[in-house]
Amino acid sequence: MTNSFGTLFKFTTWGESHGPAIGCVVDGCPAGIPLTEADIQPYLDARRPGQSRYTTQRQEPDMVKILSGVFEGKTTGHPISVMIENVDQKSKDYGDISEKYRPGHADYTYDMKYGIRDHRGGGRSSARETAMRVAAGAVARKVLHFFPPPNLPPQAGAGVIVRGALVQLGEKTIDRARWDWNEIHNNPFWCPDALAAKEWEPYLDGIRKSGSSVGAVIEVVATSVPVGWGEPVYGKLDAKLAEAMMSINAVKGVEVGDGFAAAALRGEQNADEISMKDAAVHFSSNHSGGVLGGISSGQPVVVRFAVKPTSSILTAVNTIDKSGNNTDIITKGRHDPCVGIRAVPVGEAMMACVLADMLLQHRARKSD
Amino acid sequence: MTNSFGTLFKFTTWGESHGPAIGCVVDGCPAGIPLTEADIQPYLDARRPGQSRYTTQRQEPDMVKILSGVFEGKTTGHPISVMIENVDQKSKDYGDISEKYRPGHADYTYDMKYGIRDHRGGGRSSARETAMRVAAGAVARKVLHFFPPPNLPPQAGAGVIVRGALVQLGEKTIDRARWDWNEIHNNPFWCPDALAAKEWEPYLDGIRKSGSSVGAVIEVVATSVPVGWGEPVYGKLDAKLAEAMMSINAVKGVEVGDGFAAAALRGEQNADEISMKDAAVHFSSNHSGGVLGGISSGQPVVVRFAVKPTSSILTAVNTIDKSGNNTDIITKGRHDPCVGIRAVPVGEAMMACVLADMLLQHRARKSD
Amino acid sequence: MTNSFGTLFKFTTWGESHGPAIGCVVDGCPAGIPLTEADIQPYLDARRPGQSRYTTQRQEPDMVKILSGVFEGKTTGHPISVMIENVDQKSKDYGDISEKYRPGHADYTYDMKYGIRDHRGGGRSSARETAMRVAAGAVARKVLHFFPPPNLPPQAGAGVIVRGALVQLGEKTIDRARWDWNEIHNNPFWCPDALAAKEWEPYLDGIRKSGSSVGAVIEVVATSVPVGWGEPVYGKLDAKLAEAMMSINAVKGVEVGDGFAAAALRGEQNADEISMKDAAVHFSSNHSGGVLGGISSGQPVVVRFAVKPTSSILTAVNTIDKSGNNTDIITKGRHDPCVGIRAVPVGEAMMACVLADMLLQHRARKSD
Amino acid sequence: MTNSFGTLFKFTTWGESHGPAIGCVVDGCPAGIPLTEADIQPYLDARRPGQSRYTTQRQEPDMVKILSGVFEGKTTGHPISVMIENVDQKSKDYGDISEKYRPGHADYTYDMKYGIRDHRGGGRSSARETAMRVAAGAVARKVLHFFPPPNLPPQAGAGVIVRGALVQLGEKTIDRARWDWNEIHNNPFWCPDALAAKEWEPYLDGIRKSGSSVGAVIEVVATSVPVGWGEPVYGKLDAKLAEAMMSINAVKGVEVGDGFAAAALRGEQNADEISMKDAAVHFSSNHSGGVLGGISSGQPVVVRFAVKPTSSILTAVNTIDKSGNNTDIITKGRHDPCVGIRAVPVGEAMMACVLADMLLQHRARKSD
Repeated sequence: MTNSFGTLFKFTTWGESHGPAIGCVVDGCPAGIPLTEADIQPYLDARRPGQSRYTTQRQEPDMVKILSGVFEGKTTGHPISVMIENVDQKSKDYGDISEKYRPGHADYTYDMKYGIRDHRGGGRSSARETAMRVAAGAVARKVLHFFPPPNLPPQAGAGVIVRGALVQLGEKTIDRARWDWNEIHNNPFWCPDALAAKEWEPYLDGIRKSGSSVGAVIEVVATSVPVGWGEPVYGKLDAKLAEAMMSINAVKGVEVGDGFAAAALRGEQNADEISMKDAAVHFSSNHSGGVLGGISSGQPVVVRFAVKPTSSILTAVNTIDKSGNNTDIITKGRHDPCVGIRAVPVGEAMMACVLADMLLQHRARKSD
Repeated sequence: MTNSFGTLFKFTTWGESHGPAIGCVVDGCPAGIPLTEADIQPYLDARRPGQSRYTTQRQEPDMVKILSGVFEGKTTGHPISVMIENVDQKSKDYGDISEKYRPGHADYTYDMKYGIRDHRGGGRSSARETAMRVAAGAVARKVLHFFPPPNLPPQAGAGVIVRGALVQLGEKTIDRARWDWNEIHNNPFWCPDALAAKEWEPYLDGIRKSGSSVGAVIEVVATSVPVGWGEPVYGKLDAKLAEAMMSINAVKGVEVGDGFAAAALRGEQNADEISMKDAAVHFSSNHSGGVLGGISSGQPVVVRFAVKPTSSILTAVNTIDKSGNNTDIITKGRHDPCVGIRAVPVGEAMMACVLADMLLQHRARKSD
Repeated sequence: MTNSFGTLFKFTTWGESHGPAIGCVVDGCPAGIPLTEADIQPYLDARRPGQSRYTTQRQEPDMVKILSGVFEGKTTGHPISVMIENVDQKSKDYGDISEKYRPGHADYTYDMKYGIRDHRGGGRSSARETAMRVAAGAVARKVLHFFPPPNLPPQAGAGVIVRGALVQLGEKTIDRARWDWNEIHNNPFWCPDALAAKEWEPYLDGIRKSGSSVGAVIEVVATSVPVGWGEPVYGKLDAKLAEAMMSINAVKGVEVGDGFAAAALRGEQNADEISMKDAAVHFSSNHSGGVLGGISSGQPVVVRFAVKPTSSILTAVNTIDKSGNNTDIITKGRHDPCVGIRAVPVGEAMMACVLADMLLQHRARKSD
Repeated sequence: MTNSFGTLFKFTTWGESHGPAIGCVVDGCPAGIPLTEADIQPYLDARRPGQSRYTTQRQEPDMVKILSGVFEGKTTGHPISVMIENVDQKSKDYGDISEKYRPGHADYTYDMKYGIRDHRGGGRSSARETAMRVAAGAVARKVLHFFPPPNLPPQAGAGVIVRGALVQLGEKTIDRARWDWNEIHNNPFWCPDALAAKEWEPYLDGIRKSGSSVGAVIEVVATSVPVGWGEPVYGKLDAKLAEAMMSINAVKGVEVGDGFAAAALRGEQNADEISMKDAAVHFSSNHSGGVLGGISSGQPVVVRFAVKPTSSILTAVNTIDKSGNNTDIITKGRHDPCVGIRAVPVGEAMMACVLADMLLQHRARKSD
């Protein structure tokens, strides 16, 4: 099950960075949901590199094709096979890494585990795999909208909304008081703080020009999630979100709600008090990040994850080759000064997939 | 699968805090491994509350019984059923919570999801469930020792070692320069910094006496993990560790290696350079926490997780009752001023279970 | 997952024939379903040996206890742990089989696979394990009644009905024209043909007295199964039923509807023609056994399975011992002249479990 | 998981009969195994229709492409994506079935379950899906050869051999005394009895010309399977084989070893006596079909399954249309007078996949 994710809404990805194609099979999508390539393509476009000088200049048109599971514009309940052909494969760019292990990459561990490694562009360990998560996430969003929460109209766009933003770029954080979701499309960083985004431009330019890289923190928020999604004890909503986010390339940490900051709080400070307000349940705060006992509380579900700095840099670092000789390596080629930027739509997609899975699991057992 | 964890080394827990018993079925344990209750009991004793004034005074003798899967002192390859009878159930302590929802607890979400809730002692959402994780973890340790890494003698005690420590208590952190694994048993906090442990005593006494609580950060380290464990892409070692730790009650964040701190680093700073030293692969540092591309690198596997402050405090907080009326609640009874302390052996257990599962998965496919 | 069965309605069994207890954990049962031991015990009593001279005289009171997952008489949505203590263990009866391999039993394969074997009463391979299937089946029946098919009143007893019968005992078959479900409790064979049952008594007496044994064929029928249960392509209702039945001890064949007889039919003969009758869909026949393309058609679901003759007989047969010496063995002790008789409630239970699982899976994805 | 099969050696199929392509993702294949399209194509060719007058004249070149998971001619341990483009889609042949339900087909149940149905050529329920099982089976064979049983040389061709044969065509059975594996490629029926094959030709010609169809029984045998494969209690080798075979389109029955005939035997008749012969374990017979207690015994693994007559016939049968009106239907177009013939390589493939999965599971836990 190593290349599959999910229980009832389940997807399996395949493909290497420089193979003929990459793809994804979404199994478990309910029938009757309108779906075309146009529902998926915009999310892939958002993830696609080469759109600004802050992401790799590799050109991936990433035109998605649906090969199965859709008939006359609607899902049939059968597996949805999605594929993207790889077209911009400059294999020569990567020649050096066939013999040497790039520190921070999977080169060494893949060779040790498998005894064989498709080194071209990172092969299976390439961030290119995340394009297929984004495709699966687009289908998951359709599922979330198809079964809108009670008390919401079943119209297009109703239901759960999943959005992500970059809240930290290297050592630079945003000012949460200036958070504006409308800003995330006004800058190349998915930054919700317009002022911070302005400051990040010269900062990241400097890093890029010096051949270095920097990490980032992404926050993904799902709103309109009804109370009751998530399964105890090992199928907790937050546990599955943690698994989902940590499975994204280069992610080193995941937190829900207050996360690590909660460790320093007192019980009183951390309490999300409950009251009735206008005949609805109201929480005074959302330290919990929308999850209590592994189950959604009806508040926004808030997840953050940390992405390490791109390991491929223009500074020589010590390493060894396949024969066990000491050497060093400079990773030339086209790379992201901050892979975290492109991780925003990937984090959104994983959130959508986890929620769609939890929705279906909840539907299976709930009373009518 | 909500109450099961693992793929090949798999365990299923059952039982409520104040039901007749709690238990665990470990499925997938290889045959021929020496196992008795004495292999499990010490880990349960370490988790057991009531051992110092810093944990709940609830007395749980927690005498474990093995009901199946062991014959003449060795595992048979069949499911190992482990059970603890509940003996110290003071249900009256919890009367108030049958009608009111404790903020920060699963009371509200359970009632909304299931329409029914065993409120006695938290029922299924009680931290008592974690005793069974510890039992499963004890079996997992035996599996890890039964298949020692290559180049290690197959004697008792060889192989992977899993240890946990409390590295932050409320806002107080340790000085990592003073880390000494031998100290963790010399204080009631599993603190590896003797000096910090001394300071934590009056600090936590104050919190306890004020009826408050505080969070914590736990670090779990596995050494002697060979290179090659972990599965791509969704079965990554770090992704499964994140899921495992986040599934523990009250955990709000998980990180591997440098974790969130990595976001602020440059690529050069984060590089774990590789070289040959004494004919062995040597890393200059371990920012990665022993995982590259989801696969163990041969370095120590390092995971940290944050536990929120105990939600049950002696200060009244606003809430609602089952009928939707505003009210407030003070959670009387016996509680931990810092549940994070008892989470240390639980975190160790989950690490051991994940590693045992990854070991078995790796064995399945590796060449002879 | 070797000791678990099911996807959403899932159970895990544990325990050896002569260990302290056997048990079952049912995970995934919806909340709010009335459940007590009295809902399970009658099915265990029906399976229990020693009730006539045609089943082993081993006495197993098999008093079932529910240890978790039920609160104030209703399921909570959490795992239901069920346990039976073993009380009639005459281990000395089985002494010989610790050293010799009984032909037709798992003795040899267990020793070869695991290198260790709990030989007492067959250990894990004993038919005693099937008691826990029956317990799980009793819970499954409650699930099936809790979610009655559309157009059926949700009262007790409504919904899917699962019944089994013995249709062949050794070479003796029933006359299907005389089928009467009311007869199955009027004879010790679960035989729906009163006349056949009469003839079977002296027949099986003869076999029993000669120390021999004989096989049987069981038919299990589920009525009121609505159209639409079952999942393509590998989660087909009939495929899961085949797996379920074949996993029962001593079962060697499974068929659905006409089964093997269908091979000899022409397309015209096998066609279940469809028509509208009284505004309802009507099939002219049920060669398909209620399954089309892996999905229930609304007709009765009909499964048959063959049980081989009990391998433990009083005639000496050639075998080897653990040291690889030629020898022979007579299995003394208390045994069934036809284990197939007691397989009837086990087959019913597996049918109920498969249907409950399919019901939940169908609910997960169907439109409201 | 409805479109996936297997635990460690796992494949997921996708695609409709008349969609742009069909495909399969094999996940869990060990690394380092030589694999090219040429290893898969011959098995697809064997299944391909249109090769004799006894199978449908639909032309499917079925040129397989490997899109991932293979590098420089060897498997990498990553998912192997296999695809076949659909080229001979004469959709007009199937026009009538968009509105009417063909008895014996999944048309009615698909519409009831999903509310939508890709009627073109049967869509997802078409036997075309089985081409992808054959592709997965070809990979499974490579896995079986890569890990040869102990005491066998690891050379190409060594290890487990899986072969299938048609043992019954309509009411005509073979004479097992004339069984010759070499004959199966000398006639269009996979018939191991040359004389029977001769008689079958005019018999099936008659059925074909009359626009009728007939069922069949297929026997699949795996030799050189070592003792010890299979998992108790619900992961039994025979239970998984039953699931595997019953999941094939049109299969109505599965049996292992003596199967249903065992029901009529006495214990003495059914005993496979064991003895040592030339320092090896020897069984006097193989009534068990190579499986004891769910685990392979070292004898040939023998499975039979029954295929119903093709439902698409040229005789009008009564049915209803989507609007609930009575009507009748004649299925024109190109069809098999006996789909059972083409089921032979499919049965072989499923056997190979189950065995590869059991091999990997066994490797995971066995001692070194």
